[in-house]
Amino acid sequence: MKISGQQIFDILEEAATFSLPGPGVTRVLGSPQHKALLPKLKQWMQQAGLETRLDAAGNLIGRYPIEGLSKKTLILGSHQDTVVQGGKYDGMLGIVVPLVALAELNAQKAVLPCNVELIAFSDEEGVRFPSTLTGSSPLAGKFDMRNLQLKDKDGVTLEQALLDIGGNPEQIPALARNPEDMAGYLEVHIEQGPVLENEDLPVGIVSAITGIERHSVIVHGEAGHAGTIPMNMRKDALVGAARIVSTVDQTCKMTDSLVGVVGSLSVSPNAVNVVPALVNLTIELRSPDSKLRARSREQIFATIQEHAKELNLGLEHQMTYAQDGVECSPKIQKGLARAFSSFGISPRYLFSGAGHDGLAMSYLTDVGMLFVRCKKGVSHHPDEAITMDDAETAARIVKEFLLSCNADG
Amino acid sequence: MKISGQQIFDILEEAATFSLPGPGVTRVLGSPQHKALLPKLKQWMQQAGLETRLDAAGNLIGRYPIEGLSKKTLILGSHQDTVVQGGKYDGMLGIVVPLVALAELNAQKAVLPCNVELIAFSDEEGVRFPSTLTGSSPLAGKFDMRNLQLKDKDGVTLEQALLDIGGNPEQIPALARNPEDMAGYLEVHIEQGPVLENEDLPVGIVSAITGIERHSVIVHGEAGHAGTIPMNMRKDALVGAARIVSTVDQTCKMTDSLVGVVGSLSVSPNAVNVVPALVNLTIELRSPDSKLRARSREQIFATIQEHAKELNLGLEHQMTYAQDGVECSPKIQKGLARAFSSFGISPRYLFSGAGHDGLAMSYLTDVGMLFVRCKKGVSHHPDEAITMDDAETAARIVKEFLLSCNADG
Repeated sequence: MKISGQQIFDILEEAATFSLPGPGVTRVLGSPQHKALLPKLKQWMQQAGLETRLDAAGNLIGRYPIEGLSKKTLILGSHQDTVVQGGKYDGMLGIVVPLVALAELNAQKAVLPCNVELIAFSDEEGVRFPSTLTGSSPLAGKFDMRNLQLKDKDGVTLEQALLDIGGNPEQIPALARNPEDMAGYLEVHIEQGPVLENEDLPVGIVSAITGIERHSVIVHGEAGHAGTIPMNMRKDALVGAARIVSTVDQTCKMTDSLVGVVGSLSVSPNAVNVVPALVNLTIELRSPDSKLRARSREQIFATIQEHAKELNLGLEHQMTYAQDGVECSPKIQKGLARAFSSFGISPRYLFSGAGHDGLAMSYLTDVGMLFVRCKKGVSHHPDEAITMDDAETAARIVKEFLLSCNADG
Repeated sequence: MKISGQQIFDILEEAATFSLPGPGVTRVLGSPQHKALLPKLKQWMQQAGLETRLDAAGNLIGRYPIEGLSKKTLILGSHQDTVVQGGKYDGMLGIVVPLVALAELNAQKAVLPCNVELIAFSDEEGVRFPSTLTGSSPLAGKFDMRNLQLKDKDGVTLEQALLDIGGNPEQIPALARNPEDMAGYLEVHIEQGPVLENEDLPVGIVSAITGIERHSVIVHGEAGHAGTIPMNMRKDALVGAARIVSTVDQTCKMTDSLVGVVGSLSVSPNAVNVVPALVNLTIELRSPDSKLRARSREQIFATIQEHAKELNLGLEHQMTYAQDGVECSPKIQKGLARAFSSFGISPRYLFSGAGHDGLAMSYLTDVGMLFVRCKKGVSHHPDEAITMDDAETAARIVKEFLLSCNADG
């Protein structure tokens, strides 16, 4: 086994067959498809020369067999699971790209600056159970054991799902690693956005993983006959909601490193000839910079409060979710940039607008991510696509990174 | 029977009992409640000294018994039916106010400038069958006989409903009046808007009945991950829709005699973390001035096309309904203004943003309307309310108008 785009694609194509019938790939935690993938994955790791074991949380770990110069361990990895009708690359690419890099290094008997483990995490997407990062959070000592009693829609517990794939849930607390033993965490992932494609770059360096906040907003107006109430006496909740949509859009367009959306909006009574009385909507803001996100939130809500006042509307709002972002390690970013330059690729830094296992791993150690260009930025969809050449480039960069990484900073 | 606010209220309260159980008044065409009201209405007309007859379309006609100076006929009236859970005044007020005015004139043996008929139209709202102005359109020769086969939700035809209240549907074509025999049509109605209340006026003169147009609009964007697609690469259909809502609102706020609303809007896929791909919405514009409405429509659609282009969105649109407005007769407006001034009330001219029997009657003769102040502009709702004083004022103005109207222009 050695680095080649064809090799990576062959493995990814075969992995994609461990799925419910299509379209796309559906492989949720603890499903028969997931259970069937594990022995195959173990076989690939062993073919790459890695020493394998399945941990208590259902993570499959492949250890690079040659002792590193430092005793610290660098973890490479991504997740085994997919969303419903997802693609072939979100998750698996971050397992297979390091796999072939490590295989080639092992074939060359390369001694690396530190110990290296490739981990295929059992669950990141959190599709079957209302809990994400089930695979990675135990390593950071951040797994909440109460989650084991969470149930899927058929009443099966997370505990049972982990048992079904050979895990040992009660031993999960013992998985926590010691931060002092760690050299860092690097994840290879499709970009899930169109930036690299747009700039004709095969790969990019993630500067930060986004923080996310969500709000539920209710705009209160007053229903009325749309013919008989003069314009200046209306309390049209949808006119207020439209200002909110525009404010979120404009604020995000004017602010670097901030994205946001009103993704959901519903109108009541929603009739062609009735002035809208009530609008329910959601606001989502994402930024890797929590302070920037907080400032932008304040600015947005100050603006929409003004609009509501001007339009004689009432406003209710509640923050329903908040997760801080994670800065990627400057050391890992530099290591990647060095590897880029050895292939003549100019380093493009971008932030990840989606969450990843790195969110959990950041509690344990320095994290970094390598993004691979994907077609039209599509992810979580059967149309996810990358090129063989880009996959091969990513593997060569991972190999270069592993040869030159400095475990002690 | 004579003009008094108490008298008007007594009759209206009793009429409101001919209803399905509340809240509000529910009396749809051909219902048992409607059928039961007719003999009572006939009795009230006869107590006022009017000569009654039920016509083929279920309209109850009360003719003023003293021959007019001219052979022409002035029709006063409004409708017997209500919406579901409507109020006591929309419709019935326009029957009862002229009723007491004519009763007092008759008691005084007044000879009027022309013949006068009070008509209680069988159906204006069009709630039970998908057809409006069933009572008034036959007089203008505008009733479509195919409508008789329209069915309600239980499969009962309009023809049967008219038979049920004593009508004679096959004779409807014979109801058409000769325009040359007509002196005009005057309807008393609650304002259904807040203008008179806001200006502390009991009554107002309608300058025109609004025209209405409706559009169905689809905004086409592109779904995407709300975290990973940069703001400047999004095709967010809801951002485009918000511009449409604002454009309609601002254009109408800046244009006299034009109102408009986006009353209905729905988003797809409508998820907190997905860029909206598609928005369906409706636009309604109303103006008594068809040319102004057309100009405003062009301006609105030009603006939203520009926005769509700027935002990389597709737009589809279809006009789904259009009904031209009706100018009220200057002669009737002047007659009302003279009557106002004899009571020291300054004439306030306003347009009717809702449709009325006058829309049909305008094909036959000059039309005019007298609006009565209603509480908070509420209509089509159990909370419809007027004051006794205002009702009495309206009746006195109608009496004065009848005494001084000039049948020959």
